[in-house]
Amino acid sequence: MADREGALSEAHVIAKLREIFASDDPRIEVGIGDDAAVVAGDRRQVMTTDMAVEGVHFRTDWSTGFEIGRKVTAANAADILAMGAKSDYLLVAVGLTGAEDMAWIEDLAHGIKFEADLAGLRVIGGDISRSEKVVISMTAVGHCDNPITRSGAQIGDGIYLSSLTGWSAAGLAILQSAISPISEAGKLAIREFKSPTIDYQFDSAQATAMCDVSDCIIEQGKQIADASGVELSLNEGLFAQSEEFADLQSIANELDVFVWNWIFAGGEDHVLLATGKDLPGLRIGEVLKGSGLSGIPLGAESSVWRHFF
Amino acid sequence: MADREGALSEAHVIAKLREIFASDDPRIEVGIGDDAAVVAGDRRQVMTTDMAVEGVHFRTDWSTGFEIGRKVTAANAADILAMGAKSDYLLVAVGLTGAEDMAWIEDLAHGIKFEADLAGLRVIGGDISRSEKVVISMTAVGHCDNPITRSGAQIGDGIYLSSLTGWSAAGLAILQSAISPISEAGKLAIREFKSPTIDYQFDSAQATAMCDVSDCIIEQGKQIADASGVELSLNEGLFAQSEEFADLQSIANELDVFVWNWIFAGGEDHVLLATGKDLPGLRIGEVLKGSGLSGIPLGAESSVWRHFF
Repeated sequence: MADREGALSEAHVIAKLREIFASDDPRIEVGIGDDAAVVAGDRRQVMTTDMAVEGVHFRTDWSTGFEIGRKVTAANAADILAMGAKSDYLLVAVGLTGAEDMAWIEDLAHGIKFEADLAGLRVIGGDISRSEKVVISMTAVGHCDNPITRSGAQIGDGIYLSSLTGWSAAGLAILQSAISPISEAGKLAIREFKSPTIDYQFDSAQATAMCDVSDCIIEQGKQIADASGVELSLNEGLFAQSEEFADLQSIANELDVFVWNWIFAGGEDHVLLATGKDLPGLRIGEVLKGSGLSGIPLGAESSVWRHFF
Repeated sequence: MADREGALSEAHVIAKLREIFASDDPRIEVGIGDDAAVVAGDRRQVMTTDMAVEGVHFRTDWSTGFEIGRKVTAANAADILAMGAKSDYLLVAVGLTGAEDMAWIEDLAHGIKFEADLAGLRVIGGDISRSEKVVISMTAVGHCDNPITRSGAQIGDGIYLSSLTGWSAAGLAILQSAISPISEAGKLAIREFKSPTIDYQFDSAQATAMCDVSDCIIEQGKQIADASGVELSLNEGLFAQSEEFADLQSIANELDVFVWNWIFAGGEDHVLLATGKDLPGLRIGEVLKGSGLSGIPLGAESSVWRHFF
């Protein structure tokens, strides 16, 4: 239950919650534990929720309301996308401190609207509450014909990323380091940290398993491996073939950081990680008989990004 | 935009948000501003979200995790009910401080499950995040044939409550006063404050307009009057005919409080307020030609409960 003295592991908490909320309702095709839930009625619907808290997921002195609105919306939209689904609706609950002015609230709303439009989400409801820190919690609803869960990876599949991970972590590192001047690549990284670019056009029709990289490749790759009962074998040489790699490497060099930390252990890029044959995007490895994730560069695992505790 | 120096009124914020999130998608039958949204596909679906924050909506030293879980679930379930809809699914996002132990988290989850079972909601997903204060944000999804909004009240309709309001406010007053010993009625009030009883069995089939009393009758009555373009004329003598009235009055007397403050201006009972002919529940007035809400006991309005700012 605890992975160190007094601390709870998210995995154990979720396992307990799955037990408490277990339901034998046959309409629930995918319940707690994947990127989103899938329910079947006259059509299959996909639903997901994601909360972001000031000081944990964003800082109001680093990001504008617009950027924060985009970022939280993107995280929810990516979960719908990661099920191979189309976005429909978004509900937004916001806790405000009371110190915000109308301009900031509007800016936040415009950021939500901007990303929602990119994703194809329509905001249909919400709630405003008072809170000591700004809290934004969203629920996105979509639909699909065939949900792509984490459990379908097949031995012999390739492993793909819709684009290179690590940009958000690089942007955060730049903001924390206060280096100056910031290169063009560095500016891109900061933008990606503030409001990640979601690969809405990624064609996942042939994917056998998929999730979005909200935590990091190491975590998400293990989830697919575990859920599918296979080994995900990654190859760092393949990552380096990405057109984006050289720019990310240049930022890492400037900050004297091991670039593989950002790529393998950085979170919040919301890039899609998928298995299948001849998928678009960046091929990064292959699915083998076995278990777990292999090919993690030595030293990258120690810095895994955690949202929780 | 501001109703006093530096303060934002919730109504103005919501008006601006409706503008920003305006959509001409024909599937959105009821968007921002009612108890829940209604979307039409192969069936009509109802979706609502509600956030509760430690120190604002609940206190962990007053309520157990179980009670808090019930309360937040009830608030969401009541919004589905207030649309004349049946509950289907619940998504739960929780921000935890890290100081909670597994027993408290389980207790919270069991409270959510308990109330969800009463409501007919199945928990299908969620998110756990770190937060300085406990934050619980839920989204409930239901379905209906004919949604009952706030805008359908007809001149000549009666006005009904599914049960008497004021219990939650009375319970809060008792907790704040620290009176002792607490009467049986007082214990009931405290229970209602901690976890309100939702009138899940209220038959609203014939209701023309409806909402749940999350803020207070004064606020919610005005919302129905404004949305329907009618006057809601309340009669305090009718409230006093409720079987519950004497008990509430006895608590008010003990605390030397004007009981109508609790009944008209108290929030979080999540009782259903409906208009129509010959509805079940407590008849409290009639719908007239005109506008606004009348029959508010003198002095009750000054203490209106506000969730926001």
